This record gives sequence, C-alpha cells and structure tokens, in this order.
Amino acid sequence: MTQEPRYGAGLWHFASYVDRYATDGYGPPVTTLEAIDLAGKVGNLSVVDINYPFNPPGLPVGEVADALKRNNLTAIGITPEIYTREFCRGAFTNPDAGVRARAIELVSEAVGIARELGCDYVKLWPGQDGHDYPFQVDHGQIWSYAVDGLRSLAQAYPDTKFAIEYKPREPRVSMFFSSAAKTLLAIEDMGVGNVGILLDFGHSLYGGESPAEAARLIHSRGLLYGIDVNDNFRGWDDDLVVGSVHLTETLEFFHTLRECGWEGVWQLDQFPFREDSVEAAREGIATMRAIHRALDLLDVPALREAQGRQDALAAGKIVRRALLSSQAAGG
Amino acid sequence: MTQEPRYGAGLWHFASYVDRYATDGYGPPVTTLEAIDLAGKVGNLSVVDINYPFNPPGLPVGEVADALKRNNLTAIGITPEIYTREFCRGAFTNPDAGVRARAIELVSEAVGIARELGCDYVKLWPGQDGHDYPFQVDHGQIWSYAVDGLRSLAQAYPDTKFAIEYKPREPRVSMFFSSAAKTLLAIEDMGVGNVGILLDFGHSLYGGESPAEAARLIHSRGLLYGIDVNDNFRGWDDDLVVGSVHLTETLEFFHTLRECGWEGVWQLDQFPFREDSVEAAREGIATMRAIHRALDLLDVPALREAQGRQDALAAGKIVRRALLSSQAAGG
Amino acid sequence: MTQEPRYGAGLWHFASYVDRYATDGYGPPVTTLEAIDLAGKVGNLSVVDINYPFNPPGLPVGEVADALKRNNLTAIGITPEIYTREFCRGAFTNPDAGVRARAIELVSEAVGIARELGCDYVKLWPGQDGHDYPFQVDHGQIWSYAVDGLRSLAQAYPDTKFAIEYKPREPRVSMFFSSAAKTLLAIEDMGVGNVGILLDFGHSLYGGESPAEAARLIHSRGLLYGIDVNDNFRGWDDDLVVGSVHLTETLEFFHTLRECGWEGVWQLDQFPFREDSVEAAREGIATMRAIHRALDLLDVPALREAQGRQDALAAGKIVRRALLSSQAAGG
Amino acid sequence: MTQEPRYGAGLWHFASYVDRYATDGYGPPVTTLEAIDLAGKVGNLSVVDINYPFNPPGLPVGEVADALKRNNLTAIGITPEIYTREFCRGAFTNPDAGVRARAIELVSEAVGIARELGCDYVKLWPGQDGHDYPFQVDHGQIWSYAVDGLRSLAQAYPDTKFAIEYKPREPRVSMFFSSAAKTLLAIEDMGVGNVGILLDFGHSLYGGESPAEAARLIHSRGLLYGIDVNDNFRGWDDDLVVGSVHLTETLEFFHTLRECGWEGVWQLDQFPFREDSVEAAREGIATMRAIHRALDLLDVPALREAQGRQDALAAGKIVRRALLSSQAAGG
Repeated sequence: MTQEPRYGAGLWHFASYVDRYATDGYGPPVTTLEAIDLAGKVGNLSVVDINYPFNPPGLPVGEVADALKRNNLTAIGITPEIYTREFCRGAFTNPDAGVRARAIELVSEAVGIARELGCDYVKLWPGQDGHDYPFQVDHGQIWSYAVDGLRSLAQAYPDTKFAIEYKPREPRVSMFFSSAAKTLLAIEDMGVGNVGILLDFGHSLYGGESPAEAARLIHSRGLLYGIDVNDNFRGWDDDLVVGSVHLTETLEFFHTLRECGWEGVWQLDQFPFREDSVEAAREGIATMRAIHRALDLLDVPALREAQGRQDALAAGKIVRRALLSSQAAGG
Repeated sequence: MTQEPRYGAGLWHFASYVDRYATDGYGPPVTTLEAIDLAGKVGNLSVVDINYPFNPPGLPVGEVADALKRNNLTAIGITPEIYTREFCRGAFTNPDAGVRARAIELVSEAVGIARELGCDYVKLWPGQDGHDYPFQVDHGQIWSYAVDGLRSLAQAYPDTKFAIEYKPREPRVSMFFSSAAKTLLAIEDMGVGNVGILLDFGHSLYGGESPAEAARLIHSRGLLYGIDVNDNFRGWDDDLVVGSVHLTETLEFFHTLRECGWEGVWQLDQFPFREDSVEAAREGIATMRAIHRALDLLDVPALREAQGRQDALAAGKIVRRALLSSQAAGG
Repeated sequence: MTQEPRYGAGLWHFASYVDRYATDGYGPPVTTLEAIDLAGKVGNLSVVDINYPFNPPGLPVGEVADALKRNNLTAIGITPEIYTREFCRGAFTNPDAGVRARAIELVSEAVGIARELGCDYVKLWPGQDGHDYPFQVDHGQIWSYAVDGLRSLAQAYPDTKFAIEYKPREPRVSMFFSSAAKTLLAIEDMGVGNVGILLDFGHSLYGGESPAEAARLIHSRGLLYGIDVNDNFRGWDDDLVVGSVHLTETLEFFHTLRECGWEGVWQLDQFPFREDSVEAAREGIATMRAIHRALDLLDVPALREAQGRQDALAAGKIVRRALLSSQAAGG
Repeated sequence: MTQEPRYGAGLWHFASYVDRYATDGYGPPVTTLEAIDLAGKVGNLSVVDINYPFNPPGLPVGEVADALKRNNLTAIGITPEIYTREFCRGAFTNPDAGVRARAIELVSEAVGIARELGCDYVKLWPGQDGHDYPFQVDHGQIWSYAVDGLRSLAQAYPDTKFAIEYKPREPRVSMFFSSAAKTLLAIEDMGVGNVGILLDFGHSLYGGESPAEAARLIHSRGLLYGIDVNDNFRGWDDDLVVGSVHLTETLEFFHTLRECGWEGVWQLDQFPFREDSVEAAREGIATMRAIHRALDLLDVPALREAQGRQDALAAGKIVRRALLSSQAAGG
C-alpha cells in the first residue's frame, strides 16, 4: 500500500451559496472562521484554499491563522475574489483601466496574506474575464490585457507562484482562460517563471478535454501548480461530489498524476448547495481513498503494455478489476 | 404590413442579479415599483410578468396596480417564487410534505394577486423540482408528487390558468419539468383543463429541441399559454438578447406561431447581467420588430411548397432573402 | 445471489462499419451467417437482434435459423433497414408517398421474418426520419406522416409488437423520434396497442435524459418492449463498451428496471469500430455481470429510505460500497 | 464596395457520402473528374481542395489538371486520405510504427501532387489520430508520435506548407489535434516553419471556441494557412450550408479576418448528404456574398469604439443593421 496523499478543500466548500433564483441563499451565511471550523470537523483534511477578502472583511489574518492551527489545517492557497460586482465586467480584461488596476491591487493584497499564512500559491480565478456576446470584444485587445496584467503581477512578486484556474465559462458566458492549451499559450506570452495552472478536473471535463491528458500536457511544461476534483454531467460546472458520475476518468486522472510523479494535494472543489458540507467532504474523501486503493490495485505494467498497443479492451479490463474491487479492499 | 404584436417582458428583466461568484450582486437591488418604472421607460412594452412576493414583501398590490397604470402596462402573469431557500430542495417534489404544502400555499396567494391584477395566468417555474445526483430520487415518487401537487392546485382554482415553464436544468442539476413532451405527459396525468405551458425559446433551444417544433406540438394540444424569447449558445440558459445568436431559428419560431394562428404576446425573458436593462429591452424589441418585418417579407406560399418537398435549400433561400432584408425594410 | 439475466446483442455488433471518412470500412464485410457465428463465439449470449435484409440479401431465412440453432442463439427481434439510401430523406416521414409506402413494405417483410424466427418484436429504427435544417419541414405534417405510418403498420399486424428505438439525432441531424416522452406522445396518437419502445441507454444519456428515469416513465405506461446498453461521452452515440464511462448510471438503470419488476434481456448495442467484436462483447458482458453482482450487494431498503428523503450523500455511499466491491465478489 | 474574395470548396463537397447507417451511400459514387466538373458548374468557384488518392486511384494527375483547367479552377490544396481503413487506429499516432511510416509515405506522395498542381498547401486532416476510451493511450506517447511525425514531414519537404485541420472529434471519439490552442502548442514543439493551421469554422464552433477568437489567435502567430466555412448546431460537425444557423458568428469570423488583414480564399466545407451538391454550393456562395456585403455595410469605426468599451448592446445594434440589410443591398 502506497502512502496516502494529503487531502484538501477550497474553503468555499463550507460556505453557503446564492444563485440567481435562490437569492436568499441556500443557507445562512458562514464566516471564514466558521468555515475553517467546519473544515476541521471533516477529519481527513490537511489543507484549505481560502477566499480573500475574508468574511467579515476586516478579520485579522492572525485570527485566521489561529483557527487553522486549532483545526490542524494549513493554508495551501489564497483566492482573491476578483469576480464580485466591482469586477463583473472583467478583472484583468476589464475595459476600464481603473478596474484593471484595482484587480491587481486586490491580488497584491492576497500575496501579502499568502505570505503570512505560508501558502504555496495565490490562485487566480478570472471567472469574469472574457465576453458574453458575438462582436462584443476585440479578441486581440483582451489577450493583451490578460497577458500584460498577469505579467506585471508576476514580475512584481517574483517569489510568489500564481496559479490560474481555467474554465470554459461561468460566470462569464465565455471565459478568457478557457482551456489548458490556451492558458499555456497565454502564460508563454507572459514570459515569466512564476505563473502556472490549477487544474480543476470538472472544468476540464466539461470543457471537452480529457482531464488526464490536460494534466499530462500542463505537467510536461512544469506548470501544474495544483489540482481540484469534483464531478459534473459534462454540460456545466456542477461541482458535485468527486466520483459521483465519472469514476473511471477520475481514476485515470490520478493514475496519470502518479505516472507523472506529481505528488501534490488531492483537493476538493465541491459546492454542496443542498447537502451538509461536512458530510459532502467526507463522502468526497471516502471516494478519493477508494480511488487511491484502486491505484494500488492497478496492474501498471500490464496497463502500460496495453496502452503501448492502444488496446482499449485490455486496458479497460485491467481498470475494471482494480476499480470495482477498491471498496472491498478498504475499510 | 401585418399588425405588430404586443410586446412584453418578465419584470425580472429590470431587476439586479446575484450568482455564486458575484455574491454582492451585479448591481444594487431594484424594488418591484422601480422595476415597473424601468419597464415603462422602454417605450414599446405593453405587459409584464411579475414575481411574487413583491420586493419589498409587504408592498400592497394596489401600489403595484398604480405603478403599472402610470406606465401604461398591464400584468400578463404572476410568477410565485417557488425556488428560494425554503424550496431549494424542491417545491412540488420536495421530500417534505410540509414544504410541498407551503409551495401550494404560496402559489395560492399568487392566484389571488393574479385575479386582482387581471392576469392571464399564474406562471409556475419549478426550477428546484428534480434532482442532482444519480440514485438520489425514486423517479416514480417525484412524478406522483409533481402531478398530484399541480392537480390539486388546478382543481382548487378552476378559473385560473397555470402555465408551467419547463427547462432542462438550473438551478436544479436535473429539472423535473425538463421538456415540452415530458411536461405534456405530466399535464395529461393531471386530468385537468387549466394547466398548460409557457414555452421559453431559450430553454427549448438548449434542451435540444427545435423551438418551432415544440411550439407546434404544444399548440396542437391546445396548451400554449404563453411564450418567452431570449438567446443562448445552446449549452446553458444564458438569457441573452433575443436574436443575438440564433436569428434564423427565432424567425422560424415566430413563423410557426403565425402558421398556428397563435396571437399572444411576444415576451422577453432576458437577463442583462452586465448591461443596462432598459437598453437591453429596447434592443430585444428592435430585433423582434425586424423579425416581424421578416415574417411579412417571407414568401409563405413558396415556403410551404418547399417544406412540402422538405427542400432545405429552397426554404433556406426564401428565408435568407426575407431575413437579410428585414432591417432595410424597417426604420 | 439472484438469477443472472439473459444477455443479448444486436447482430450488427459483429459486423464491419463504414463512415464518411473510412469509406472503405473499418474491416472487411461480414455476412449475416458469419456474424451469427461470431456471436456464438462470445459464450454468454442467448439472443440476437437481426438486421433485415440479410447480408447477402437473398439468404434464406432457414439458413439463418440453422445458424442461430448451431450457436445456441435465438432471435429476439428483427430490425428492418429503413435507413439506407432509398430512405435517406426519411422512411415514415419521407416527403414522397411512394417511399413511405416502400418503408411500410420493407417493415411488413420483416414482420414475416420475425414470425418465422419466433421473435419478440420488430424493431423500428427511424434514423432518417426528421430534418436537418431550420425551416426545412412543416413539423405538423411530419408528425402526421410518422403517426399515420406506424398506426397503419400496427393495425395491419395486430399480433406483432413494434418497438421504436428513439435517439436525438444521427444519421438525421434532428430525428423525429428523439426522446422517450415525445415518442410516448406519438404512440398515444396512434391509438393502437402494439407499438412500444426499445430504450437504448446511450441514446437516452446523450439526449440529456436520465436513462433510469426514462425507463421508469416508459414502463409506467406498459411500453418498455426492450432495452439496449452501451456507453458514450454524452455528446454523441459513441456505442462504446457498456460501463466504460458511466458505471454508476448504468447501475442505476438496471436497479430501476429491477425495482419496476422488468425482467427482459440485457442487450448490447456496441459498435466496436476498431476493436475485436467478440472480445468487445465479452468485455461488455463481464461488465454487465459485475453490475448484476452490484445489484445484489446494494442495501435496497436503506437505498429506498435515502431516496425517500432525496438524500444524495446517503444514497451515494450505499451505491459506492456495492459498486466498488462488485468485482471482488465475482469470478 | 470592396473587392469580392475568391471562393473555393473542398472537392468532397461534390462527392457522395456513406455513413454507418446508409452503408450503400447517399448517392452513386462520384469520380474525381466528375466532382471537378460539378464544381465547375457552380459558377463562382475559383479553387478546390482535392482528396488524394484520386478516385479511381490510378487517375493521372495530368487528367486532373486538364479537368481543373476546363472548369476555370485551380487546386489550392491536396488532402491525403490518412483516415481510411489502413489508418483507422491512427495515422501519425498509430501504435504500429509501420502504419505511421505508411502515413508519412502517403503524405509525401501528396506533396508531389501538390507541387504538380501548384497548390498552396498540403492539408493534414488527422481524423483518426487520438483515442476512444479512457485509459486507452499514454497521452505523453501520442504527443510524441504526433509531433515527431509532422516534424519529419516538415523537414523532409521544407518548401511545402502543411496545414493541420483540427477538430474535437469524429471519426475518432477524441481527436489529438482538437483545438486551435492545442494545435499551436504541438506546432511549437515541432520547431519548424512550414506547419500551420487550416481553421474550419464549424470545427471551432462545435469545439466550444469562438471561431473569430481562434482566427485571431492563429493569425497572431502567423499560422493561419487557410479557412473553411460551413455550419452546425454546436453538437457535431454537421457541415451544413454556411450561415444556415449562425449568421452573426459567421459575419464576426469574416470581420475578424478582415481586421487581421487576412486575404485568403473563402472556402466551403459543406457535406450536402441529402441535397444537390451544386445547388448547395451556390446557396453557400450566395450566403457568403451577403456576408461580404454586410462587411461593407458595417460601421467599423463605431464598432471598434463599442468593442473598446466591450459594449455588447452597441456592437449588436451596429451588426444587426448591417447584417439584416445585406440582402437588400445585393442582387
């Protein structure tokens, strides 16, 4: 049995949500400290990725650090909220130079917080960058805005790693950082060494990528800064419990990471709108543990041989045997 | 030139929106009365469909009636909000009998408001009814809940028309009333005469239907109580300005309604998240007026003849000539 | 351990395929008798569904019967090829009355073959019925064509069951019989008692349905004449090996059939374009056997209780434990 | 009025098609010379892209040249058929080194033909390169195969331009060259100067890209070797008549090309399965001429200004006025 990975979660997993219909929220608001305490109750979490500004906004970072400590958690990343009202027409690609500057400023604050909390990276989730309508933007211009903005950030904070989380769409109808390959091209244009990618399994899946293939591609360029998992029905970023729909592709994703020698945190990005957030995290971790056991059950030499022949049936049989025995092998 | 249709809009067109990212909203909140005044500013709107409870909740219906009157508007429908926190696990299909009863109660209140305002229908938008995960529900059971709940409503208010607005998904990952055909089957099981359908062009489009075909099917059973238009990229209910993506299918939709002899209101269901709501409505109406002119330019006998032969090229040529001349024919 | 189901396959599983790119075919042509012998080699197949006309066309039905017998197979259905060149603009909905008549004639021949071979049903796969372009057809007219054509068939052969296999599209860009619900409405309009549905898991899945829900709906009207399984990525009818992508939803589908008391054949509709067809069938059956074991491992009372509460996490945990132990429980 | 572009078509536009259902083809086979004569009948075509091997295979290139000449056509490209039975498990990424070598050989023959006919490029349409199933391939390995194969070709024929036509899928369930960005990354890894991209509007559209944005991105790297247009419903490569569904995005695509200063051929890649191929080409060209007139009617300074503000409504109004007047402005 190989050593288990460390498990993590976005702290928003333990928040409450609103959407355009349930405008009063799917539950009462949850503060940052409350969310950390909920994360602590899960039992197998080691790290969290924390939104900034905290809730409430004035909360001292020392209190956050204390809350993490008492729950045996550390902060792996800080996610500045560059997607709220102020930035609803874009953060880095906003047509207004003042708003673009304010986005840089907010990320800069997040850099400071990330340092204080000893994070691995500042995560950039540019969900409002892009466009909604045909003819709305000059695509060359927003490419420049995005590349220039991130370059300036990266150059200003050369010791900080910035991880872009790409997604095809939502909240913007068409997001600028939409796929692994396009994000890699943009990073290339930045010409810096501290901007990489946070690969979200669900974003990749519903963007029509093979998440395993995307992981391999990003890792081959040395830019796989982190990963998130969850699940969906391939039409939207449903952020369901990991493995609830795509068990085999989730296994393939983690198998590929192991083949690459990538050893980072297995992190949850679930949105349990209508479920208990602690129980949803526990079910996600239970599934990841089954996946981890399945990895150990895989006949890897035979699988590599089958893949060398591109023999889907032989590979499928090996995978079925491991995956459909993984629970029995566990607790 | 045939007579222009009456134009309408859901009153939420003039509201502000929140989503799970811009939790502080895409703009400041808008009250019901403010929204009516904004609708009045558009200039070509005759009717609105109004959410209930009003905003603020205590607002007397008389004030709403006054606001409508001073803006030369009438209320075509009332949409009870059976999709807020209380109903987030379902209104008619909620596992809790108490919540199901509360949904009936809220709709009943809306019936009273609809009578006071002289509406054509109470619209039911059961966006939280359905499920999210495989294995979550017993599909037979939620069929019964949905059918029984609406039947009891219809029987309690035999003089009121209830219009179900179906959609494949959102906010629920899988909505119960998901398509025209499934909704017709459920209505059939209700065995009442006052439940029909509000067909939303965008919902139909992204559900993989031909909206024109869905209109024909619903109308053939005498159940087309109303229609909404907007646009999207076929992957989500983007609620963009009508015609911004699918001009030809929008024209086909209205052509089919004319062929059916359906003469109701051409109603907007746009969500201008990042746009001025009055300008977005004006652009939607300008597009509908171009579509209306295109209908008059269509060589209908030749089109019918081409359709009789199922000749896509001949039909396409007739349509192209009308559609791409429709602006020049206008103001 | 409950008794294993009988397994079956469409005989085309053992054919060779062409498409618009590999116009010379993915392998050499396979005759009907050769395909039956390949089916016999699989080892666990009991029944096959056979295309008609046979290949070669003149093949006497007695030779087919002999080939089935020597392979311990029986014919469950006959599928007349109402989708070849002659019918490429539609079989039942073709604009040409002569072609519509010829489709009826071909199905009538298939009725005779089905009687001789003792089949359960004649399967209707109207893949060319529908349309390709906006404005191409009068949707009311093709509804009449489809309903009238099938009604006349059903009335002409009252002792034969006709099973419609619906699909959203392909080869037609938009197929007329596109969903479970729409097909049920059309069957209702026929007003006969011997037209039902063959539910293909993959068609349902990529049409945006929950296959389990579709099964429940069709069964509730007494019209579930048969089922096919395979898999895909929800964007097309890939006809991959069953369970290769959607293990959980395949389990839910068979669980729902068991809950309904439906006890028919578990039938494969895979298209192994680039794989050995016998091996692909064996892998499909091995997966179905694991699914069958998982059904026996499911804690059904607890699952029903969780579904009564619509508790996705509790249901998911029960399912995970059964599914991910199903291989270990087997051979 | 600006000068009209030259129009072209893939010669397969005038062929007959087969698919897995209409295995006897949608019409009788068409030879290369017959297809050229059909292209000549269209009336506005200047160039064609020709499949190789010719049909019949032994056809002397001189006869092809003569046929082109008598129809006032020239060959813009040669498309070697690296997607037939021999290559059905991949051309460049085939697991068998012998097949990979044979693919290189076939493309090399095409280089010779392209030289003789004075083509601009050899088009590579690697539709069988990729995979079908999860776990089927080692993604790192097929990346190497693809990059190495094309690099060796490019180095062997430094005076020839090779244009890769990417597509998300079909015939392979998951194509290796799946998007503009991924193809650019792979081209980068080749490290050569004569491999670029042929951008197919429909492939881009149904791959979830904005075709206009993809054009801008590819052009910015100097690699836009050619373009094809057609249309679809965003779920599959339907190859419908250009503009039959997405008029606005087609206009945006050509507007972007004009803004980039790109002045190549406007080329059709339609597959008129059930239509007259000459008429389908004429309708496609008629639509492209309307689009060209719409470009001249666009208020470009106002559009640029609106795009600078990312003002979707202002841009939309400018576009609507031009597009919906474009037919009236024409013949």
